[in-house]
Amino acid sequence: MTSQRKLPADGWSEQLIESFLGELSLMDSNNFPSNCGVGEREARLASGLVSRRHFHLGHGIGRSGDLTEPQPKAAGSSVINRLTNDLALDALRAAGLRTARACFVVPMATGMTVTLCLLTLRHSRPRARYVIWPRIDQKSCFKAIVTAGFEPIVIENELDGDELRTGIDDVQRAIVAKGAENILCVLSTTSCFAPRGIDRLEELGALCRDHSIPHVINNAYGVQSSKCMHEIQQAARTGRVDVVVQSTDKNFMVPVGGAIVAGFDKALVDSISKNYPGRASAAPSVDLLITLLALGAEGWKARLQERKRMYTELQQRMMQLAERHGERLLLTRNNPISIGMTLTGRGGDRTELTQIGSMLYTRCVSGTRVIAPGDTKVIAGHQFEGWGAHHSHYPHAYLTAAAAIGITETDVERFIGQLDKVLARWRRDRPPPAAPSPAPAG
Amino acid sequence: MTSQRKLPADGWSEQLIESFLGELSLMDSNNFPSNCGVGEREARLASGLVSRRHFHLGHGIGRSGDLTEPQPKAAGSSVINRLTNDLALDALRAAGLRTARACFVVPMATGMTVTLCLLTLRHSRPRARYVIWPRIDQKSCFKAIVTAGFEPIVIENELDGDELRTGIDDVQRAIVAKGAENILCVLSTTSCFAPRGIDRLEELGALCRDHSIPHVINNAYGVQSSKCMHEIQQAARTGRVDVVVQSTDKNFMVPVGGAIVAGFDKALVDSISKNYPGRASAAPSVDLLITLLALGAEGWKARLQERKRMYTELQQRMMQLAERHGERLLLTRNNPISIGMTLTGRGGDRTELTQIGSMLYTRCVSGTRVIAPGDTKVIAGHQFEGWGAHHSHYPHAYLTAAAAIGITETDVERFIGQLDKVLARWRRDRPPPAAPSPAPAG
Amino acid sequence: MTSQRKLPADGWSEQLIESFLGELSLMDSNNFPSNCGVGEREARLASGLVSRRHFHLGHGIGRSGDLTEPQPKAAGSSVINRLTNDLALDALRAAGLRTARACFVVPMATGMTVTLCLLTLRHSRPRARYVIWPRIDQKSCFKAIVTAGFEPIVIENELDGDELRTGIDDVQRAIVAKGAENILCVLSTTSCFAPRGIDRLEELGALCRDHSIPHVINNAYGVQSSKCMHEIQQAARTGRVDVVVQSTDKNFMVPVGGAIVAGFDKALVDSISKNYPGRASAAPSVDLLITLLALGAEGWKARLQERKRMYTELQQRMMQLAERHGERLLLTRNNPISIGMTLTGRGGDRTELTQIGSMLYTRCVSGTRVIAPGDTKVIAGHQFEGWGAHHSHYPHAYLTAAAAIGITETDVERFIGQLDKVLARWRRDRPPPAAPSPAPAG
Amino acid sequence: MTSQRKLPADGWSEQLIESFLGELSLMDSNNFPSNCGVGEREARLASGLVSRRHFHLGHGIGRSGDLTEPQPKAAGSSVINRLTNDLALDALRAAGLRTARACFVVPMATGMTVTLCLLTLRHSRPRARYVIWPRIDQKSCFKAIVTAGFEPIVIENELDGDELRTGIDDVQRAIVAKGAENILCVLSTTSCFAPRGIDRLEELGALCRDHSIPHVINNAYGVQSSKCMHEIQQAARTGRVDVVVQSTDKNFMVPVGGAIVAGFDKALVDSISKNYPGRASAAPSVDLLITLLALGAEGWKARLQERKRMYTELQQRMMQLAERHGERLLLTRNNPISIGMTLTGRGGDRTELTQIGSMLYTRCVSGTRVIAPGDTKVIAGHQFEGWGAHHSHYPHAYLTAAAAIGITETDVERFIGQLDKVLARWRRDRPPPAAPSPAPAG
Repeated sequence: MTSQRKLPADGWSEQLIESFLGELSLMDSNNFPSNCGVGEREARLASGLVSRRHFHLGHGIGRSGDLTEPQPKAAGSSVINRLTNDLALDALRAAGLRTARACFVVPMATGMTVTLCLLTLRHSRPRARYVIWPRIDQKSCFKAIVTAGFEPIVIENELDGDELRTGIDDVQRAIVAKGAENILCVLSTTSCFAPRGIDRLEELGALCRDHSIPHVINNAYGVQSSKCMHEIQQAARTGRVDVVVQSTDKNFMVPVGGAIVAGFDKALVDSISKNYPGRASAAPSVDLLITLLALGAEGWKARLQERKRMYTELQQRMMQLAERHGERLLLTRNNPISIGMTLTGRGGDRTELTQIGSMLYTRCVSGTRVIAPGDTKVIAGHQFEGWGAHHSHYPHAYLTAAAAIGITETDVERFIGQLDKVLARWRRDRPPPAAPSPAPAG
Repeated sequence: MTSQRKLPADGWSEQLIESFLGELSLMDSNNFPSNCGVGEREARLASGLVSRRHFHLGHGIGRSGDLTEPQPKAAGSSVINRLTNDLALDALRAAGLRTARACFVVPMATGMTVTLCLLTLRHSRPRARYVIWPRIDQKSCFKAIVTAGFEPIVIENELDGDELRTGIDDVQRAIVAKGAENILCVLSTTSCFAPRGIDRLEELGALCRDHSIPHVINNAYGVQSSKCMHEIQQAARTGRVDVVVQSTDKNFMVPVGGAIVAGFDKALVDSISKNYPGRASAAPSVDLLITLLALGAEGWKARLQERKRMYTELQQRMMQLAERHGERLLLTRNNPISIGMTLTGRGGDRTELTQIGSMLYTRCVSGTRVIAPGDTKVIAGHQFEGWGAHHSHYPHAYLTAAAAIGITETDVERFIGQLDKVLARWRRDRPPPAAPSPAPAG
Repeated sequence: MTSQRKLPADGWSEQLIESFLGELSLMDSNNFPSNCGVGEREARLASGLVSRRHFHLGHGIGRSGDLTEPQPKAAGSSVINRLTNDLALDALRAAGLRTARACFVVPMATGMTVTLCLLTLRHSRPRARYVIWPRIDQKSCFKAIVTAGFEPIVIENELDGDELRTGIDDVQRAIVAKGAENILCVLSTTSCFAPRGIDRLEELGALCRDHSIPHVINNAYGVQSSKCMHEIQQAARTGRVDVVVQSTDKNFMVPVGGAIVAGFDKALVDSISKNYPGRASAAPSVDLLITLLALGAEGWKARLQERKRMYTELQQRMMQLAERHGERLLLTRNNPISIGMTLTGRGGDRTELTQIGSMLYTRCVSGTRVIAPGDTKVIAGHQFEGWGAHHSHYPHAYLTAAAAIGITETDVERFIGQLDKVLARWRRDRPPPAAPSPAPAG
Repeated sequence: MTSQRKLPADGWSEQLIESFLGELSLMDSNNFPSNCGVGEREARLASGLVSRRHFHLGHGIGRSGDLTEPQPKAAGSSVINRLTNDLALDALRAAGLRTARACFVVPMATGMTVTLCLLTLRHSRPRARYVIWPRIDQKSCFKAIVTAGFEPIVIENELDGDELRTGIDDVQRAIVAKGAENILCVLSTTSCFAPRGIDRLEELGALCRDHSIPHVINNAYGVQSSKCMHEIQQAARTGRVDVVVQSTDKNFMVPVGGAIVAGFDKALVDSISKNYPGRASAAPSVDLLITLLALGAEGWKARLQERKRMYTELQQRMMQLAERHGERLLLTRNNPISIGMTLTGRGGDRTELTQIGSMLYTRCVSGTRVIAPGDTKVIAGHQFEGWGAHHSHYPHAYLTAAAAIGITETDVERFIGQLDKVLARWRRDRPPPAAPSPAPAG
């Protein structure tokens, strides 16, 4: 296994995985029976409970110089770290990023990992002050730029039918206006809440190539979608893509706390891992390793297929439900995960609309978002009109639901049932809604 | 427990801790029996093995806005996060940082956490480009500055007898030369390898106060030493200290991967937690929580006392051993953890000296460092003469060993035994060493 | 849960089960934080590993007087014990023993448990020396009688077509010959290897009723079959059934080591639990409790249904395979679990036939039995002709396979595949077999 | 390890033990990745929680014929079983039974295991009806005889000073009266509550030798006492000892549920293991194996030493306390574990005396026994006068406490503290007690 560097075809039993980790763990110096430690960091673990849950691995990953460098004191941990990165690369390729050349797991969530990537790019672009960022209304994406010390150039999305797509002309204008050498990178996005679609990655990749600007893709939960992965792959083939950042928890069903930095140029990926100062937690790597071994190549592909099937299922069921309630789905061909449904009943009243969200939550439905036009939010000095909708003036109030990896028939069943009840109740005392405007051709 | 916000007097049994975590875990929405999730992040865990080792906690800590903010979907995780920060503050105070006002656990090791602090300070000092940094030869400290995008002003240490202390006049000169407003902060250090001592924190604190420059203290493994904690406390009382960063693994015997950001001003500490973009791994918090509950206040103090006792023990035993081999200990009154011993036999030959380190390692002694004069290293464009010794021209070759928290009698016993054999063997075929020069008065 | 005394409708998550056991465990005195023990048995556990795997339960079940009596020192363990017995009764009823009135779990496997039942019956029948036992060729059943100190009267089975059924006339003759008051009980059997069928329980029950002889049923793995359970229920309704003994591992998929003693008269069942001298291991009870909570009533019934379906599947597949190889299935309408298939090729050669078994085992097929006529075995002084076939002169050589609870499609698939290969290979160099004789009408 | 058959000198870490069990477990056929099972017992485990707590071992120990026979389907379990028996023998020898030749672990507690031994002896002594049993007031010992179907000949103890010793003349008279060939065995006892001492094993052994009567020793918790073990060893050397039965939980600090059958003649011990009908739970063996590996030879001996030290400590502290309260310790030189203290205050009132026990229990003191003269109990038709005191007319009311293996300084400290308070309170409203009579010379 440690030499093959690929996912096993069939998943391993937990018993086998534990046995494997147990053997590796015994290779770390803190687990040598006759070891004596007189350094300042000897992976001593005070609590047996903590020790066991980490399989007695205490040294973390990385060395002061590099997140991917082996630690002499911790041969087992080093193998785990390398192997996880190998298997993660294999899993990304299987999911569609066929020509990815290198990747590594960072024990930080997507936002902070994007920050680390931007900080690394700074070394090769010392004059750069700006990051061009097609708007996506997730706070941590925006903050990742600000935390890294750069000024975001927010590119408003264009309305195409119901769907929101990259304002590609605005991107071009911004490059010219600010000067390519002053721009650290374009930070685009794949996965996002409807009605925003995947960014126009090929066009952005072409612009980046033409202006020699790095292109970082926030692929937070896009690994689970073959469409997201395909579009990244295309952009990399025809234009420029430097780094792709994805969440481990959102794509691989592990606890929050890890991200994978992947790229098509090994040297660049290495430079990011080398830019991380010091060691780091091994927990996200170990979680991912266990999960990938448990799934195997077949299990991983089956999960991806199943998700796609559930997306169709969710879409069908929501469409029928929408019809029953005089609503309709938003037509968003470029969003393969999240689905929006109009909420037209006295739609202007934000307070009443957001009640729907809390009514659902108290009925154990988590994850829906209700967006009513008109919210304004200031983040790090930047004012976002129509916050939540990825657009200053989106024309509809709506609700979103996502078919994310791991969703089950039962989830869909329950969601549709509860949403049906909630909408019925919500409308009971309200005047009949005006029919929603039909979706213009996308 | 969740309302007291203090360490329990006596440690809890593992059974009780697991029961407590189990109850909290059932409060997270992913563990509700009838939950259905249609969001993009529902804390679904593919592997039962992963789920169990995290007590079925999947949502991590923090919200897009803030590492310390509660998550509505994850009430249990939120309690764990808050409680951990409360107990950590109590533990820091018990260890000597009596007037600390706030702290939080970051799931990143010390280096990256220092980077995060520097990035936060940038927002209030947009013109600043420099970080003043009394030299300490640990790569990740230096890299923390560079990764954050700042230029380190390296302050050479002064030789005071055997000991290396802060070049305080050079700090003052650097402030004047660069201009206070161009300086992001002074980044000082407490814990370090001998013969470097704790930085002159009071003097640095006074300079920072006088020039209105933030003062960040890298207290990596200083929590375990009442001397380190006392000097920070003094500097905060008499001068300026903004942030103190400490490792969880080095001080609290948990796996690598967490740090505590502490301070004397709640607003500043909060601004750092708010600067972290997105959620983060709960694993380091959970590890620390388990460990603090298992220790209790009494257990924590007992561990600190025991470490101090072991330091004296290690010092005595090394002194006797040094005498037997014609060596002597370096006199470093301001280093309460690490101990240096001269290596005088044909000391100029670096290769031969470093053999001692590998001979020890193959005998299961981990953590010693052998420093031979004359190494030069370039890190991020900066050239360090005499790398490893915290000084360009340290006059002795030497070996260090540390009495870090958790060290046992057996560790010391074995170390002394193995070192004795190694030194005997190493000298066998060599000419008798010249007597080491006596230590000048400190 | 602890008051309902019934299986939960839906199974519990492992998380919930662990949390429940954790709470109960804290009620045992050895887990009180301030307990001090000065008895000779204080449930101190030397190894944390052992303690954890038993959820810190150390006191076992029962008291010196009675396996079902609560222990004052161990309130939690006592609840677990009582609850397990309640849920086991509910599960037996759901499986078809509708009028069962009492049962308890014994931490001994079926054989030793039958011994305990016989030893208890002795107290009310002090003159009895014999146990009437319709032959079944499983060593431990026979030994259970001998170990208890009784003399087995072995009743040869009658050949009815392919099938072996109770020699009911011989039973009657034996009762008369030995004298009813000298007979401790009739020990009949439900589940067994084909071609033996379930004993004629109604006829045996009638005889026992008429002669006032106790009737003990060895229902080792019959709980999983509605037919076995139905026939027991019928015999109890129309005739006499005193005690029914069943294995926990064979019916409930827990590790080997427990049995359930059930009956239709609470006083009799209690007298057996009271006859057990001393305490006993709680492990089999805890395993069964966990499993029953995890299954719930729905899960339990689904498992039973699934097994029945798999029996039909296995039968169909074996029938097709038999045809391909010129063999046929033995017609055994009264065996709902085990299936026999003739092996006619030069059938007289025992050594060659038993090769088939080892060829299968080396191909990872476990559990088949190959029976060639002519084996004789002496157990405890009794000579069994034709050992293995439940009959002195069974006319066929054959192989058996069982559709036991938990068997999967994959098991059947692999078994048929391997058996096909093995039979093909085994016959390759042999003369064509004579056609097997047709099954006479059952 | 598996070939050495001896305790490791130093204990193993839990990590190593788990790794070792994990490897063995993978050798059982139910854990082969490609296994397919078509038998009636395939060690399928429905619950993952159950599977993990048993290290995925499901096949139990033993085969239909013999508790110590290997199972072809379960190579790992078989190794575990054999190894446990080997290490148990080594541990018994280290504890003083130097010439023991064989032993095996039975997954039944002491009482039922004694029953099994008696049932086995029956085969070689078919005429025997009686068991000679020097009285000990523990119900399960007496019941072990009755359950096996024998008639106990109760031998009243003789009062020797405070102490109760074997009525050796009565034993001899009983042998003559009943006829040696009608006596199954003498069942003697080592460990018991004060003031009964160890039976006069040498004298009993000589009588058994002279009359050719088997001698079974109930050594329930005597392994922990070098005195008990020494006296057994002596009796075996100079007279006759057939079987020695000891509890695993009381001597080795594992959960209740196992016993060790040991002897000086391998064939006899084997005949008992062969008499067990069927397989049995592996849990008690696995618990003992883990514990013995964790202790190692050094740890085991240290525990035994520590217990002896604690006995002296408990005795001293109780003596001082007794003096303060006008009581005295019972002088029982032949009881190395349990200590009695007179309770003279209005001693005739049984109800008031037994209050002391409940007052202690509500103060978290478990394990004391308060014995007031005059209780009569009928067990299985036999009437015991003065039940609890091992004697029909013991002259004192008293309380016992035991220094059993694993007892700590804290236990003793708390016990003395609570007993002090309870006695003070109990006497407060009572007339001053008469001074207890001095102990006559033993």
